Parts: sequence; C-alpha cells; structure tokens
Amino acid sequence: MIKQARVAVVGVGNNTSALVQGIALHRHSGSLVGVRRPAVDGLAVGDIEFVAAFATSQEKIGKDLTEAIFLPPNNFPRLDCDLPEAGVPVTKGLVDATGVDRVAAALAGAEVLLYSAPSGRPEVARAYAEAACRAGVAFINTTADPIARDPEVMSRFEAAGLPLLGDDLASQFGTSVVHNALLRLLQERGLTLVSSYQVNLGGTEDFRNLVENPNTKKRSKLNALPDAGKVEMAPLGYLPHLRSQKVAHLNIEARGWGETVVSLDVKLRVDDPSGAAGVNIDLIRIAASALRNGHGGHPAQATSLLKSPPGTAI
Amino acid sequence: MIKQARVAVVGVGNNTSALVQGIALHRHSGSLVGVRRPAVDGLAVGDIEFVAAFATSQEKIGKDLTEAIFLPPNNFPRLDCDLPEAGVPVTKGLVDATGVDRVAAALAGAEVLLYSAPSGRPEVARAYAEAACRAGVAFINTTADPIARDPEVMSRFEAAGLPLLGDDLASQFGTSVVHNALLRLLQERGLTLVSSYQVNLGGTEDFRNLVENPNTKKRSKLNALPDAGKVEMAPLGYLPHLRSQKVAHLNIEARGWGETVVSLDVKLRVDDPSGAAGVNIDLIRIAASALRNGHGGHPAQATSLLKSPPGTAI
Amino acid sequence: MIKQARVAVVGVGNNTSALVQGIALHRHSGSLVGVRRPAVDGLAVGDIEFVAAFATSQEKIGKDLTEAIFLPPNNFPRLDCDLPEAGVPVTKGLVDATGVDRVAAALAGAEVLLYSAPSGRPEVARAYAEAACRAGVAFINTTADPIARDPEVMSRFEAAGLPLLGDDLASQFGTSVVHNALLRLLQERGLTLVSSYQVNLGGTEDFRNLVENPNTKKRSKLNALPDAGKVEMAPLGYLPHLRSQKVAHLNIEARGWGETVVSLDVKLRVDDPSGAAGVNIDLIRIAASALRNGHGGHPAQATSLLKSPPGTAI
Amino acid sequence: MIKQARVAVVGVGNNTSALVQGIALHRHSGSLVGVRRPAVDGLAVGDIEFVAAFATSQEKIGKDLTEAIFLPPNNFPRLDCDLPEAGVPVTKGLVDATGVDRVAAALAGAEVLLYSAPSGRPEVARAYAEAACRAGVAFINTTADPIARDPEVMSRFEAAGLPLLGDDLASQFGTSVVHNALLRLLQERGLTLVSSYQVNLGGTEDFRNLVENPNTKKRSKLNALPDAGKVEMAPLGYLPHLRSQKVAHLNIEARGWGETVVSLDVKLRVDDPSGAAGVNIDLIRIAASALRNGHGGHPAQATSLLKSPPGTAI
Repeated sequence: MIKQARVAVVGVGNNTSALVQGIALHRHSGSLVGVRRPAVDGLAVGDIEFVAAFATSQEKIGKDLTEAIFLPPNNFPRLDCDLPEAGVPVTKGLVDATGVDRVAAALAGAEVLLYSAPSGRPEVARAYAEAACRAGVAFINTTADPIARDPEVMSRFEAAGLPLLGDDLASQFGTSVVHNALLRLLQERGLTLVSSYQVNLGGTEDFRNLVENPNTKKRSKLNALPDAGKVEMAPLGYLPHLRSQKVAHLNIEARGWGETVVSLDVKLRVDDPSGAAGVNIDLIRIAASALRNGHGGHPAQATSLLKSPPGTAI
Repeated sequence: MIKQARVAVVGVGNNTSALVQGIALHRHSGSLVGVRRPAVDGLAVGDIEFVAAFATSQEKIGKDLTEAIFLPPNNFPRLDCDLPEAGVPVTKGLVDATGVDRVAAALAGAEVLLYSAPSGRPEVARAYAEAACRAGVAFINTTADPIARDPEVMSRFEAAGLPLLGDDLASQFGTSVVHNALLRLLQERGLTLVSSYQVNLGGTEDFRNLVENPNTKKRSKLNALPDAGKVEMAPLGYLPHLRSQKVAHLNIEARGWGETVVSLDVKLRVDDPSGAAGVNIDLIRIAASALRNGHGGHPAQATSLLKSPPGTAI
Repeated sequence: MIKQARVAVVGVGNNTSALVQGIALHRHSGSLVGVRRPAVDGLAVGDIEFVAAFATSQEKIGKDLTEAIFLPPNNFPRLDCDLPEAGVPVTKGLVDATGVDRVAAALAGAEVLLYSAPSGRPEVARAYAEAACRAGVAFINTTADPIARDPEVMSRFEAAGLPLLGDDLASQFGTSVVHNALLRLLQERGLTLVSSYQVNLGGTEDFRNLVENPNTKKRSKLNALPDAGKVEMAPLGYLPHLRSQKVAHLNIEARGWGETVVSLDVKLRVDDPSGAAGVNIDLIRIAASALRNGHGGHPAQATSLLKSPPGTAI
Repeated sequence: MIKQARVAVVGVGNNTSALVQGIALHRHSGSLVGVRRPAVDGLAVGDIEFVAAFATSQEKIGKDLTEAIFLPPNNFPRLDCDLPEAGVPVTKGLVDATGVDRVAAALAGAEVLLYSAPSGRPEVARAYAEAACRAGVAFINTTADPIARDPEVMSRFEAAGLPLLGDDLASQFGTSVVHNALLRLLQERGLTLVSSYQVNLGGTEDFRNLVENPNTKKRSKLNALPDAGKVEMAPLGYLPHLRSQKVAHLNIEARGWGETVVSLDVKLRVDDPSGAAGVNIDLIRIAASALRNGHGGHPAQATSLLKSPPGTAI
C-alpha cells in the first residue's frame, strides 16, 4: 500500500482552500472531475496528508487548517462535501529571512513544502526553501519569485538529493492558455492576425494585488502569446462581486484568403483558485515521488506545469 | 522559370469567385494575407492560370469566368482589386453521366480539374473524374461525394499515373476547427466536459442547401469532435442577410478541480467561400506538382486538407 | 385578514412546477426576489392556495401536486426550500370537449382556474373555460389558443360577471422583451437598422413541441419586433442539456451618423418556466381580485401581461 | 429658402472630423442613415456652413478645415464621399483666458459656436463663451466643464437674448445608453439585479485622456445607471488598434421568479466620434433656430441631448 504524501503548506489563501477542499471532495465522492492525472507514480488524488501550515494573518494562526481556509479575504466557495478537521493548526509564518530553523523543525515528518504565498517577497520564499533543504523536504515554489531559477538554490537542493520545483504555477485553464491556443490555431491555418485584445476581470485578493502592480503580469502574459506585437492587454479589473471567479473577454481579428474578415470573440469564466489547485495536486505528487525515488533537482515532469522553470529568464 | 499551373474548374459558385478574385488580389498587391503556403514546390499563389470553366446555370454559360462569378445566387463580395478578363468563357457543364468525351476534349491543355460543384450528385462527379482521367489531367474533388475514396476510381488514376485528390474539402478556418481545438484543449488540461453546443448560421446558396438536407452534415460535424456525446448541434440557420459570411456560436460548459464551473462562449465570423478557396489554392498546386513529377494517386501532402481522404468511411 | 385565493390548475408541467415551488420558496424565506408585484389588491405572493389540479399523464394522476411536478418530462429544478404536501391529488384532465360537468363539479370551492396546458388544443381549452363558467370561477388562458379573444366565450363570462383573462402569456423576461427593447432604443436614438437575427435554444418539452411546429411561434415573435422586415429568426434549437433554461443569441447591425458601424451582440440566459410563473402569479391575483370585486370580463390590469389580449387578431 | 446655419467650431479633433465628413456624406448621397432628426425647424442636415475653426495644434493651424481633420492624433476614418475644400483655414485657438476679443472678431458672420475641445480646461471654455456672447453668437458646450450650468454665464446669455446649450454631450448611442436601458427593463419586469459590470475599451486620444483621469468619468457613468450600487466598472482600456471605435462588454446577473438565474452578456461596438457628431448636428440646428427666433438661454429641446443640462449638479 502507498503511503500518503506528507505535505506542509505556506499560505492559507484561496489556492490552499481549493486544494484542501478539492481533496476532501474527491475522498467523499471518488469523483475525478477536473482531475488531470488520476495517479502520479501510484499516488492518487486522495493520497495527500497535510502535516503543517504557515500563515501570517493573525486571524488564521492557531485555527485548524480546515477552518482557516474560510476566513477573509479568502472567498473561494465552500464545496459541497464533508470536510473533517485536519488536526493541523496554522502556525505563524515567516515575514522575513529570520526563523528558518523554527520552520525547519516544524517540517519534521513532512515530505513536501508547497510554497503558495503571494508573489513579491523573494527573501521569504528563499527562507522557506532553506528551511525545506535543512529539513530534507522537497520544495515547490508556485510564485513568480525566482527560486528554482536561482542556480545557487538549485545547487543546494541537488547536492542534498532533494527535489526543487518552480517557478510560477501555470494555471490548469486560464486566459493565456485559451488565447494562446486560438492564436496558434490561426497561425497554423495560415490566417493573418490583424489585432487582438484581452480583458481580465477578477475578484480575489490576489487579483487586487495584481491590479495594483500590473506591469510584470502584463509582460508575462504577453510573453506567453505568439504574434504578441499585435495583442493589446486591457488593464486588469478588480470586481469584488466576481469573488473567486475570473472572467476574460478575448477578441481576435484576422484576415483569411482574399483578405476577408475572420473574427473571434470569446468569453471565458473560470474559478481562479481551482485552476491553481488543479496543478498543485500534480506538483505535490511529482515532488513526493521524486523525493521517495531519491531524485534531487527539478523533475522533468513538472516543467510543463510551470511558467518559469529553471533555465528561463529571471 | 516556373510554368503556371493550368486549371479547369467545375462550378462557378462562391468558392470559385473567392479563388479567382483572391489570386487576382495577390497578383495586384503581392499580399500574402491569409495564405497558408506561400509556395508549393515552387508554385506561388499567382502561378495559376484558368483554362476552362464548366457550369450548368444558363446565365453563366457563355460569360467570361471573371464576369460569371458575380452572377446570382453568388454573393461573395467583389474584392478591391483589378480583375482582368480571363479569356475563359464558361462552358455548359454536365448534368448526368453523359458528355464525358466532350469534357475530356475541352480539358486539352489543362493540368488540373478542380471539381467545385455542390455536393450530392456523385454520378456527375464521377463523370468529370472520368473525363480528367481520359484527358490525362489531375482531379480534385472538393465535395462530400466519394470519388477519391472509391477504390475503382483511384485505381484508374494510379494506373494512369495521375493525381486524384479528395474528398470533401476541410475549410481553412471554420466552426469545426475552432470547436475541436477548444474541446481538445479542455481534455489536455484535464477538465471534464459537461455539455457543449454549436449554432451555425450562413447566407449562401450552399448553406441553404445544407439547411434543407442537414443530417449528413450534422453527423459529419459531430464526428469531427472529441467527446461528441456531450455536444449538441442546433439546426443550421439560413439567414440571407449574412450573404457569404458564416457565423457560429459555441458554448462549452466544463468542470475543473473541485468541480468548479468553467465556461466558454465563442462567436466566430468567417467568410465561407474564402475558407474554401484558401484550401483550394493549396490543393491545386499540390495536384499540379504531383502531375509534373509523375506521382499518380493521392498525394500525402493533401490528406490534412480534406475531411474524407482515401481510406476513410464512405 | 385577506382570504387566500383558491386556485385550480390545468397542466402539471414545468410552469406549474415553477409556480408551486416559487410560492413555497417565498413562504419559506419571505424573499421578494424576482417578484414584480409584491401585492395585488392586498393579495401577497403567498396568498395562493391550490385546491385542484388536472393533468392527462397517467404517471401524474393520483399523485399529490407537489410530487407530480417533479415527474418527467418536467425538468424545472427542485428549488432549495421546504415543499409541504399540498393535499391536492392530480385529477384526470380532459382530452376533448367531453367531461365539462365533471370538471365543473371539481371546481367547487375554487375562485380561479389557471389553464396552463400546452398550446394547440383549442377545443380542450374551451371545455375548461366552459366548466369554469358553469362553476362560477375566473378563467386564465395562458396558451395561444383563442379563448379570451373569442367574442362568444367572452360574452358568456361577462354575462356571468366572471373574469376571463387571456390569451398567451407574455414571459416576464425573454428574448422578445430584450430584442424589442434594443431595437426600439436604436430607433429612438436615430440609428438605422441594417440587419438583426435571433437564435433561440431550449431544453423543455414545450420547446421541443415548438421546434416541431415552428411557424406560428416564428411569426408571433417577428410581430413583436419593430422593423421586423430586417430581422431574421434562426430555427429554434431543442438542446436537451439546457433543461429548463432558454438561451438566446441576438445580433443587431446598425449604422450611425456618417454611416459608421454600430453592432450589438447579446447572449441571454433565462429559466423559461420561471418566466411564465412570474407572470402567472400576477394573473392569478388579478383574476381573484376581479372575481371578489364582481368585475366580469377582461381586467385592464392583465392586458400588458398577455401577448394576445381580447381585440388582437386570432 | 432656408439660409444655412453659419457655424464656427473650437477643436478640430475626431468629433469635428465626423461632423464635417458626415455632413458632406449626406450632401453627396442624400442618405439619412443614422440621422435622428431629418429637419430641425426647417434646417436639414446639409444646411450647415462652417465659417471658422479654432485649434491649438501647430500642425492643424493654417490648414483648411477639411484637411486638418485628418491629421494625427485624429483617427476617425475617411468616409467614402467627396469632401470639397471648406475654404476655412484653421485659426490659432485660445490656451487661456486671454484673446477673447480676437476670437469675438473672428466670429463675425457666425451664428453658432460649437465648443468641441477636450474637457478639463474650464477657463478656456468660459473665454470662448464670452467671445460668443460679445459677438452675438449662440454657444454650445459639449464638454463636461460647467458653462451652461454656471448661473452667471447663463444670465449673460439670457440678458443678451442668445442661446447657450450645454453641458456635456450625451452620445447618440453608447455604453451608458444600452446599460441603462437593460437595467431599467430588468426593474420594470420585476427581476432582481444581483451584479453587473461594464468594460469600456477605446482607441482615440480622448479615450487615452480618460484612461489617465478616470475618476470623474467613472462616477458620471455610474450616476447614469439605476441600482448603481450593484454595478462595477472595470478600468477603461486604451487599445490603440481600435482607433475611433469603442467596444464595451456588459454583464448583468439577475434573479427571476423562484430565484432562478437570468444573465445577459452584451458586446457593443460603436464609432465614438460618430456618436458625438450625430448629436452635435442636432444641437447646432437647435441653437441656430433659437437664435433666429430670438430665444435666449437654454432651449428645452436640447436638454435630452446633454448629460448635465442647466440645473444639474456641477
């Protein structure tokens, strides 16, 4: 029998809520709806056990993980399933580079540390990676901060025979994925792109942060697209009533044979944290499996699940 | 210098209008907009010369090809370019299996016969194929009638060392192409399809014919899609004011991780005859090149441009 | 204290399901969501008591009204509220003009008979109206069959001092309402309509019937629109997965000052039975109030809730 | 015979381009497409003569009005009609409150001064109004700067028996008009609004200015809507490739009877300058007619064409 993967998580936001609840839903109903890989090296979706959780919000600290995930500003919905208490109280997380030893101690017994805090605090991300390394735990960086792309950090993990996965989670299904697929389809069929735009609207705290610091995101979104010189990005719109949903409007104007008009309008609605959790469930199992098989460094299998894997520009 | 491909065409409808005008537009401006293959074995888009045209409409017979393409019920627009007279009067076409010798005689000097009449008269299609075979001309069947899939016809062409391309042109960019790409993307990302629909609206004579005989088309459209059991096709809508445009509304409802909702709504507008001509321009050059190189039978290069290449079900 | 309106209903389909459940939901929560008139002459939404129900489906006959509304082909969803048993077993309804006396007897104690069966059986509708008249009960015809427009039937009700409301319920919010509003807005602002189309998709049994007999509906829908000569209706699409939802796609192409393009694309999603019940709740209270006040004939207040009130063409 | 209205214009941007070209198009073809009022007090669309034009751009000054309207950043398209030279060279406009006498002198022979410069320079607007007053010319303020709402300015015009129209042009057909109509329709039919959003995208210089100073516009847009507390405005998106087109995406989520879902998605495409010119053509004729009839002050007929007529808040 497979032993459950023992996971610690940093950040108790919407993405963690979607992950914890989605696992419970799967256990409850056996449902494989929305699951990309039913098993990874023998590990099923339900073979995950949470053993520690770190957060910085005073409201969440001390609460059981299964309770803390519903506290504001989290607004991912409560899924329709039993959610037994995890027995994992949320622990005070790091706010700077100090406290690595405390975290390393708390990771005793964990196999994987999933770093799922907001982007933009690279020194904190590095401190957690250091703690994981000291504790002999695989590390997953889902943020845009460069950790797996940092050759020094990667060397440390490789030397220790520990897996290091990152950086920047690619959502299971989002605007970039769809926009990309359609623009490539156009190219493939020989149509000529005239112009295109993308409007992104969302209602999570993460989205609000992006709205206030839009430039990196905008550039990274454009980088993901073919013929990006003809694509314009409208400013991100934070619309609280959307809650954890993301809505995108895409338009593509092209010309076909005889310069006749081809036009495509798309409205996409997804749940944002769910798109992250659907990838995290795979990253965790890839990390646990690599650790158990003694494979340090970046697992090839993880590359397509990340926007900025090792070797890409920082 | 490359010698121009000498092409005869059966059917002087919208698709032929788009083909003839698109070539003139390219010659006029050098534009490669909407062109999938700038060159096929050295043949550029402009390297096409029309040498004969067959039609059954009394109004079109006797008119120059460049005049006949604007007669009703054709409603493909007049493109913005000079269109010098072709010097090719439209000849009376076949209405049944008689007259093969007359057509064969008229094909003297042609290299390729493009069969671009409405689907649904297989005996007429076969008669033209026979005429091409006798005249030593390559044959392209763009209709759904089984010609290239007919082993007997194929054997005749192979024995004669003549190319035979068909059946059923796959539009350069249409509803099936987009719907397919999106449904496959969904699968690839691990989402679960709940339901999907497709609404097709058009204003050409071809479209009107389909509306009156929808079943074959509906089945062939569903066959083209993954997870087709969950896709519903609304009845085709003939809306004359759309003229040669086709409009499609697609909806895709799916579930992601945690069974959260993913939904996609697409509106697609294309010019229907242009989507056909953009593929015919490639088939013609593939056929001419195969003929010149002495390759009889079905050229592998043509397979992806056809819905029902040899070997698929009749 | 207001005495509850005592209502008998003919037809135990989706519309009756939406009506019965919506009233229960209102009683449960006090919610006035989606309610157009909180009170009609003192009668609140909850002041309705069902006293008889007629249906022709063997499966429904004998079941309590609150159970029968969930039997197939009904597919209006189960609303999230308690639904106490009505104590009203569904009675065998009429299939032709015989049995009027039996129905009249069963209407003892009722104030209003709501005729909510499928359109297309005028002789049955007239038989129920006759029964209502004999029993001294107000009659509401929600179908397109001409009852209130039949001067003979109207005279009978007027002579008896009984209210007669009809014909053909105008949905609370549907495609025609929205299309109409937008086309009128265009006119009002001085824009020039070029073309417009309407696509209607639905999944109820009623919708399936319409798809098979589309002409009357198509004409009545066009009649409802200004500048109808420029509007094209795509064929109705019966898509079972939509269940009780109706989806419409509208397009409006117009020209503004300088002949510049104005275009509007609309996707509308509504629940079809709910749109009927939201109007029936008002018609019932208008009928009961008219009866109680001794006003026979057609109440003026009902006119705007009907597509074909008395005086319009049959 | 009616004497042509003699008009001077301040600002030679897109709106002026649309006005000048639209009048020429009408004269050329007699077309009344997109015209709200074929005649105003006997003045037809073509009964407008431009007699002076003021601008601050060095490139435009000295050019004929019909040439200056095509200079960047103007991007309203060149309409398909003859545009005979106006014989009106663009004059250096005001940049502050000095130069009133010079402008007044230049207005000799004019009947109406149309102030169509960018919003945001109230002192300049007032200076032009003063010049008009001194010259005995009617004044139209199409900007949001308070001129007609300024009681002092209004008194001056009333005392002089001169018409003063303003402030802030209401576009002939735009996002607010459509959003408003749909939200009101919802209310009227008794549906309950849950949430709504509006995304506005445009490509003109005016739009770029708004994007950089969005707050006033946002507030004024919300003020225009019923149930505005439930409506969220996405940030304006300046997408240069749209040129003079404006694109809006509207979403409306509501609940009907039984709390069932009603949802509306709208995509609107309009030409922005055309929507202004279509109203300016009416304001000009109303102003000229009032002047000729000796009616000073604000003409009642103009009120519905303005967002902030006299008496509304500044």
